[in-house]
Amino acid sequence: MKDSIMTHKIAILGASGYTGAELVRLIATHPSMEIVALSGDRKAGMEMAQVYPHLRHMDLPALCKIEDIDFSDVDLAFCALPHATSQAVIKDVPSTTKVVDLSADFRLRDPEAYKKWYGKEHSAPELQKEAVYGLTEFYRDQIKDARLVAGTGCNAATGQFILRPLIAAGVIDLDTIILDLKVAVSGAGRALKEHLLFGELEDNAFGYAIGGQHRHLGEFDQEFSAIAGRDVRIQFTPHLIPATRGILATAYVSGEAGAVHYALANAYKDEPFIKVLPTGEAPNMKHVRGSNFCHIGVVADRIEGRCIVIGTLDNLTKGSSGQAIQNANLMLGLEETAGLMNAPMFP
Amino acid sequence: MKDSIMTHKIAILGASGYTGAELVRLIATHPSMEIVALSGDRKAGMEMAQVYPHLRHMDLPALCKIEDIDFSDVDLAFCALPHATSQAVIKDVPSTTKVVDLSADFRLRDPEAYKKWYGKEHSAPELQKEAVYGLTEFYRDQIKDARLVAGTGCNAATGQFILRPLIAAGVIDLDTIILDLKVAVSGAGRALKEHLLFGELEDNAFGYAIGGQHRHLGEFDQEFSAIAGRDVRIQFTPHLIPATRGILATAYVSGEAGAVHYALANAYKDEPFIKVLPTGEAPNMKHVRGSNFCHIGVVADRIEGRCIVIGTLDNLTKGSSGQAIQNANLMLGLEETAGLMNAPMFP
Amino acid sequence: MKDSIMTHKIAILGASGYTGAELVRLIATHPSMEIVALSGDRKAGMEMAQVYPHLRHMDLPALCKIEDIDFSDVDLAFCALPHATSQAVIKDVPSTTKVVDLSADFRLRDPEAYKKWYGKEHSAPELQKEAVYGLTEFYRDQIKDARLVAGTGCNAATGQFILRPLIAAGVIDLDTIILDLKVAVSGAGRALKEHLLFGELEDNAFGYAIGGQHRHLGEFDQEFSAIAGRDVRIQFTPHLIPATRGILATAYVSGEAGAVHYALANAYKDEPFIKVLPTGEAPNMKHVRGSNFCHIGVVADRIEGRCIVIGTLDNLTKGSSGQAIQNANLMLGLEETAGLMNAPMFP
Amino acid sequence: MKDSIMTHKIAILGASGYTGAELVRLIATHPSMEIVALSGDRKAGMEMAQVYPHLRHMDLPALCKIEDIDFSDVDLAFCALPHATSQAVIKDVPSTTKVVDLSADFRLRDPEAYKKWYGKEHSAPELQKEAVYGLTEFYRDQIKDARLVAGTGCNAATGQFILRPLIAAGVIDLDTIILDLKVAVSGAGRALKEHLLFGELEDNAFGYAIGGQHRHLGEFDQEFSAIAGRDVRIQFTPHLIPATRGILATAYVSGEAGAVHYALANAYKDEPFIKVLPTGEAPNMKHVRGSNFCHIGVVADRIEGRCIVIGTLDNLTKGSSGQAIQNANLMLGLEETAGLMNAPMFP
Repeated sequence: MKDSIMTHKIAILGASGYTGAELVRLIATHPSMEIVALSGDRKAGMEMAQVYPHLRHMDLPALCKIEDIDFSDVDLAFCALPHATSQAVIKDVPSTTKVVDLSADFRLRDPEAYKKWYGKEHSAPELQKEAVYGLTEFYRDQIKDARLVAGTGCNAATGQFILRPLIAAGVIDLDTIILDLKVAVSGAGRALKEHLLFGELEDNAFGYAIGGQHRHLGEFDQEFSAIAGRDVRIQFTPHLIPATRGILATAYVSGEAGAVHYALANAYKDEPFIKVLPTGEAPNMKHVRGSNFCHIGVVADRIEGRCIVIGTLDNLTKGSSGQAIQNANLMLGLEETAGLMNAPMFP
Repeated sequence: MKDSIMTHKIAILGASGYTGAELVRLIATHPSMEIVALSGDRKAGMEMAQVYPHLRHMDLPALCKIEDIDFSDVDLAFCALPHATSQAVIKDVPSTTKVVDLSADFRLRDPEAYKKWYGKEHSAPELQKEAVYGLTEFYRDQIKDARLVAGTGCNAATGQFILRPLIAAGVIDLDTIILDLKVAVSGAGRALKEHLLFGELEDNAFGYAIGGQHRHLGEFDQEFSAIAGRDVRIQFTPHLIPATRGILATAYVSGEAGAVHYALANAYKDEPFIKVLPTGEAPNMKHVRGSNFCHIGVVADRIEGRCIVIGTLDNLTKGSSGQAIQNANLMLGLEETAGLMNAPMFP
Repeated sequence: MKDSIMTHKIAILGASGYTGAELVRLIATHPSMEIVALSGDRKAGMEMAQVYPHLRHMDLPALCKIEDIDFSDVDLAFCALPHATSQAVIKDVPSTTKVVDLSADFRLRDPEAYKKWYGKEHSAPELQKEAVYGLTEFYRDQIKDARLVAGTGCNAATGQFILRPLIAAGVIDLDTIILDLKVAVSGAGRALKEHLLFGELEDNAFGYAIGGQHRHLGEFDQEFSAIAGRDVRIQFTPHLIPATRGILATAYVSGEAGAVHYALANAYKDEPFIKVLPTGEAPNMKHVRGSNFCHIGVVADRIEGRCIVIGTLDNLTKGSSGQAIQNANLMLGLEETAGLMNAPMFP
Repeated sequence: MKDSIMTHKIAILGASGYTGAELVRLIATHPSMEIVALSGDRKAGMEMAQVYPHLRHMDLPALCKIEDIDFSDVDLAFCALPHATSQAVIKDVPSTTKVVDLSADFRLRDPEAYKKWYGKEHSAPELQKEAVYGLTEFYRDQIKDARLVAGTGCNAATGQFILRPLIAAGVIDLDTIILDLKVAVSGAGRALKEHLLFGELEDNAFGYAIGGQHRHLGEFDQEFSAIAGRDVRIQFTPHLIPATRGILATAYVSGEAGAVHYALANAYKDEPFIKVLPTGEAPNMKHVRGSNFCHIGVVADRIEGRCIVIGTLDNLTKGSSGQAIQNANLMLGLEETAGLMNAPMFP
């Protein structure tokens, strides 16, 4: 059904993780992308349907090793590898292939910040400089011309969608921002850890990386400070909840609800994926599940001058693989929304 | 993005239930369907986004009363109304509008059988005669020419996908078929009942309509007897499990696994939506979630001459609204798979 | 197994709701309580096992109407009726019967506050004056001598357990307290509402009563202001998550983590049910499920002078029915922990 | 609160798994058992509260290595070790210590059967001969005098509770028994496997060990053949469902519902833990959660002479650790129900 003359050749590096599988899911109905290579080092030789039987109906190349990919045939590579591995791999991708990286490796522009949050020196600092931060709605023009785009953290995307317009518009106090996240489990990937087992997470909830330890704070610090023109440090604590997909972010800010709502509604009035609800309404996490949409609501607090802003998106879609495709669309000169207008899955 | 010249005008009657919402979700990315009317009697006047905020991004007509629909502008109507209501409504739809009914009203061809299972006389027996049973893979040619197609029960579809080819091929004993279903909760619709509450269903499981009380048995009896050319009565018991979408059907049959597998693989070898797994493998319910696919597996039992056949589909998609669109595609002369090739959502 | 001479005769008014069933569950193994009457107006005449089959093994009186209870035989009545109904009923309970009320009717001492939060005049203001607030750890001495104890709100209990000692010790700023709750669904009772359906809540999360609309704020205002000796108004927003039992409360406070942790550890050092974790550790909601325990943790934020306090309890047990039995134990001269030392159920 | 003179000294070998934790949970309120030793080889030196924080309130010995336990001080040891390890360990426990083994090592009396199902020679065949099969309701007298009791498989217990009385009473056909199980995930233990992750199991369901591969068939074969006095081979297929605790077993049998119900009701009429529902009613898995109860229901099929029997229990309690304590009670001369009468946890 795809027109082979018009399609772009796509490789997915690290296709055996959840974000890799989500890229395949979305590309399945993308009008102008064709998957020509899928890598998965430890699973090289296996069919994708063995790793992800839900993709059984698709005609996909078998998983291979990265070194076996002929990049001369690849227009764009999504890199869904673990942090640190990405740097090493992308260095060797020929410059004729555009790259959208989904790891954390190129999100932070400052090598010192990278070292602080990730605990080691960056091994590809020249690429780090070149990479464009992949929050499409705010870096659209640079992304169009970029060769390397760094996908944002999924928590970082959620927090920025609700806070960036408020900081930019100067309608909230910058020193008392608190961001409380409720996070579904797929953000942790397919990792085998006790606390991710069904029996442990059902009926459970807990905070983690509490009090400023989460690496996505590196992105918040970088971006919010750049917008404000001064150092901005927010409080940010994520909580794991018994759900598979989604992030619900609650921001407590000092600012008038009316001004806050206006700043958001105005910032996103022409955005196809960001929907600001009427004042006083708050979003449901399940109302964006499986889609590239982000819903945002604003409610005034009973305490004068304070309000609550709640935003939600699907961490695997708008928070990661959907965002990646949105960026790839721009990089390839396609319609930004191509392949991404599927409705959320409810119930 | 849709080409308005090539699109068909669609009405959804009873759009405020889950199958109505699922139709809208699927049509959102259908290349050749455009929704021109949505009815919801008790919610007439409301926007669809108020009833289903996950559809907020779509440009949809407001919910209206059925009598306010101008059917001269409607090529095809999906009727997602409750049982019994459907009959009355469809009688009054002008014959220039094709109809896919998702209720149980036109599934049984025999007025006596209808009365037995649904407890009352059919009020549109002439339409009942005309209606084509909507199990696409087995009624494809008749559906193409039909004006009224009766969508199957979701449990009935699942059971038939695994059993029809076995009965047709004569590879199993007809008197000892047992069908045990594990059913997700959305099959019960948006009904407000205690046992459907999250707190009651989490960590729960139970049989219902046990021992031959479930109305979908009417469909099994009708279809299996027709194929076999003699009366066939199976044992069928569904069980509710704490999941939202999906049916996993386990059939216990007397027959050789090899012959059983061959009959299924052969029957579905050219089907785009039915995937038969290699012998000895069994499907996962989540591997078809949100999609129009059905996965089937066959495993030999340790007892000579018996085997287990397991099939799974999403009750709201392949079991209901996806099937309905598949049938509508045929009725409108479109590609059968149009708008239905989205991949399942996993995880 | 219970010694009938030593047992106290118990009635449960409104036994057909979740808190009623939870009382029965806990009393099942209580050494000194015997249930002599269970009321459930709309279900009068039914056996408890019909309403709650998990209690099938118990020898319980059938559900009756309240007017059919002979209170001369009742030492203590738990009143698990809806708000407003409680007032009317308790007025007529003879003064020889002690009462633990689980509704909101007697939590607020000030008739004006009651009217503000519950929207109507109190119909038993003299009882309102007499009632003791049932947060056992802080009202123990008064509860021992009380005839009427008002069980706290479940959210109100959770928030107070983490905040009272901090306000009392003066270790946090009183004007910037933010309380973000993650709440399981059983707190809403067995009400038939769409958003409580399994299919709607699975994979969902959303804020409700956002920005200071939740009635439990009446309790926070009353109690925190009394401790501080001045008006204290906190920000409080609960979020529903897909879990059945439990509340996880995250408090964002301005104060040194060391002093905050010390205040909590010191306040609860002799408490049998409140467990303060080592500094830097945070509790899991599931680690108290089904029990009368409350776990509390303190973590310093990266921003100097701020910290996060997280507390968790089971809303039906420590947040409601377990608390009620703890209070009843004191009122009846029993060991405070009698019948309440069962371990949490994990996994 | 426990009377130290009357308590029996208990060791739990392999306390770091779910069945170990469940033993501790139940013993927490057992009137006559005191835990004196907890082993966990890989976690030796850790506090139990570090491995299972829900047990934080208990005063427990730290985890140790088995060789560091002084068995002269131990009246009874629960052995919750993995299969095969149990044999080696129990051989070395002094004969003055009674042993309840929760592994599969001593369930099968025939060394050949053991080899067939577990793939290796038994290393303690003399103990194998001595061990009493731990299905309390049917081996009560032998258990009272036993030194070594072999806990049953949790699936095996469920299937036997519904089928043993029917085979014994001769009311069903022995050659057409089909047993379809819906199994919660804690039966798989705390193992780190992809299909046990929350994100993979939510909204999923699938058969496993299909067609006669499950090891608990060894127990069915042994026990049912012994009762019938001839070889009995049933069909048995378990299915994993997205729940944490519980097994719901559906048996399809040829037999009259009346006779089947009578056989069950009669067999269990004096049993404290087995509850047979009125004819035509079927049990819910959640109605026994966390308890030592088993609920059984019988429903006639529409096909003459066939019926459906459904039984349910909590795999960790009645299916494993609760059963173990029930057996230990008998072995220690205690009341059989001691510490086991806690009500199920619902919701």
